[in-house]
This record gives sequence, structure tokens and C-alpha cells, in this order.
Amino acid sequence: MIDEILKYNREFVESEGFRQFKTSKYPDKRIAIVTCMDTRLVELLPAALGIRNGDVKMIKNAGGTITNPFDSTMRSLLVAVYELGVNEVMVIGHTGCGVQGMDAEEMLGLMRERGIDEEHISLMRHCGIDLNSWLHGFSDTAEAVNETVDLIRNHPLMAKDVRVAGYIMDSETGLLESL
Amino acid sequence: MIDEILKYNREFVESEGFRQFKTSKYPDKRIAIVTCMDTRLVELLPAALGIRNGDVKMIKNAGGTITNPFDSTMRSLLVAVYELGVNEVMVIGHTGCGVQGMDAEEMLGLMRERGIDEEHISLMRHCGIDLNSWLHGFSDTAEAVNETVDLIRNHPLMAKDVRVAGYIMDSETGLLESL
Repeated sequence: MIDEILKYNREFVESEGFRQFKTSKYPDKRIAIVTCMDTRLVELLPAALGIRNGDVKMIKNAGGTITNPFDSTMRSLLVAVYELGVNEVMVIGHTGCGVQGMDAEEMLGLMRERGIDEEHISLMRHCGIDLNSWLHGFSDTAEAVNETVDLIRNHPLMAKDVRVAGYIMDSETGLLESL
Repeated sequence: MIDEILKYNREFVESEGFRQFKTSKYPDKRIAIVTCMDTRLVELLPAALGIRNGDVKMIKNAGGTITNPFDSTMRSLLVAVYELGVNEVMVIGHTGCGVQGMDAEEMLGLMRERGIDEEHISLMRHCGIDLNSWLHGFSDTAEAVNETVDLIRNHPLMAKDVRVAGYIMDSETGLLESL
């Protein structure tokens, strides 16, 4: 599948398909969006928010949440605020998110089935890695978004004048609900 | 600016703009993409790869790299592989990335200027948080992408049959260079 994508890419560049996307690295809308890697949001989210190339910094992970204040997601937000002029942050969860109800033991079972060695899992645990916390999902999307908003707002390195707000997007219609 | 976006969003839903994006949570192309939050890639990257809603899992952070094997980015990839059928991973850095040459002391200076208390920074350091490593960028984009590819491929919990490959995208034309 990657090979097909690479072929498409060469044709895209040869036909100068990039001309309509010309912009700079500074986000014109001065917004950073933290949201989910979900397939349903790839085109729907920018379309539903009217976001074009150059408008925002887009940060995405499974669930669109931040569980660790010194994670790559929080680091990305600090870069966006201090280096790139972002002054508003939207945290956008969505309906039917796969991380809701995700179960660590179930995923470890799938890993064993695909050939991950039980001894390696045991070794990691004895290195102090808490796999069960790390691979556990959230139980309530609104609660998870609110916790992430709270973590960003109160992060000791976040500028106090940055507006941070939480939303849930309907994965079918793109409708945003403010939390 | 957020308020304008919320207004746009209500109009988008009322006019049923979402109809063309209908899809499921499973990635049709069975690919996960790890890339940068950069504004220039928001529309250019999917366009240059021919990616539509529903095709891929899109994971984004500052730089598109993974520096910690138990970070939210690596967790997202494991969810994508074990729960959602992903069997290929593309790591895509890009030219002129803001994380290249990012300097921790410089960013801490900007934080102090925006009102972050020196005492808080000192306290965090005495809590064992290595701010200088965390806020430091990479010096070479290709090297950073290769390190992330290596980290994903050799992660103790990653299935061995998953293809992982690294690329650099030209931020203006969208051209992918294979590493």
C-alpha cells in the first residue's frame, strides 16, 4: 500500500498539485488543536472547522488526550505557544473513540497472539514499566477531555494568557459540543 | 478565533457538509502515519499522498518523532496495530521543521518573558525533570526520522510483521524522499 502512495506522490508533485497549499510555518489562526488519530477525523475535522493549510498546528494521538505532563503532546503545545504564536488551544475528543473502554490485558493478549514473548513483557514490568496503566483507555470521553484541558491550563510552563477549551466532535456529522 | 470556528461548524453541520466523509473507524489503507504538527502539512500532506477520510491513522506531534518508547505516540501506534488492523507505518519528517535546531535555554527564556516563575522552573528541575533534554530539538531531520523508525521497529511490544519506513517531505511541494 505504501508503494501505491509513493507512486501517487510523484504524480502529485509532477502535476504541481501543491500550488494551492502555499503557506508559512506560522499558524494563521494562532490555534493549536489536540485531537484523535481516528480515521474518521482525517478530512472531516478540518472540513467541519473550516481549517485550511497554514491555519493551525494539529497534534494527534490515540484519544487526543494528554496523560503525562512531560509527554510529546505537551511539549508540542509549548513549542506552538512560545515559538509559533499560538494563543488558543482546542482539545477535541470524539464520539465512539476506540480509546474509550480500551483494556490493557486484552491488548497484551493480542500482542501474545502476534508473537510478543511473555518473557519480554515480564522483563519490562520488572524494569518498572507500568504497562497496565499505559495501555489502559479512558472510561468517559468528556471526563478525559476535561482532564486534558485542566492539565494544559495548569501546566507549570504554560503561559497564563493562553485560552484552552474542550470539545467533543460527533464522528459522523462533525458537530462540536463545547464542554 | 475559536468562536468563529464554532460558528462555521454549526453552518457546516446544518448544510450537511459531512455527507461526503462517511466512513468507519478502521483505516481502509491499513497505514498509520507519524508526522509533524506543522501548519504547512495540514492539507498538503493528505493531498500529496492521496489520503481521504477513513484511509489512515494520523499521529502528529512537534517534529513527528518519538523520543520516549512509552510515550503517547508509541502507545497510539500499538493501538493502531493491535486494535485497528494497521500493518504499515510511515514516519514522515519534513524540510524546514521548527524542531530542528530548537534550543531549550532559548525556549525557557521565552517562558520567563511570558511570566513563568523562575522558582517553578527550579522546582521542576529539583523534582528530577530534565527540562533541557525535553525541550531540546534534533539537529538533523533524516537522522531523527531514522531513529524513530528504529525505535518503532525494535519496540519490544511491536509485531515483527509490521513494515516501518521513514521519509522526508518537501514542505512546499509535498514530494516524499525515502530514507
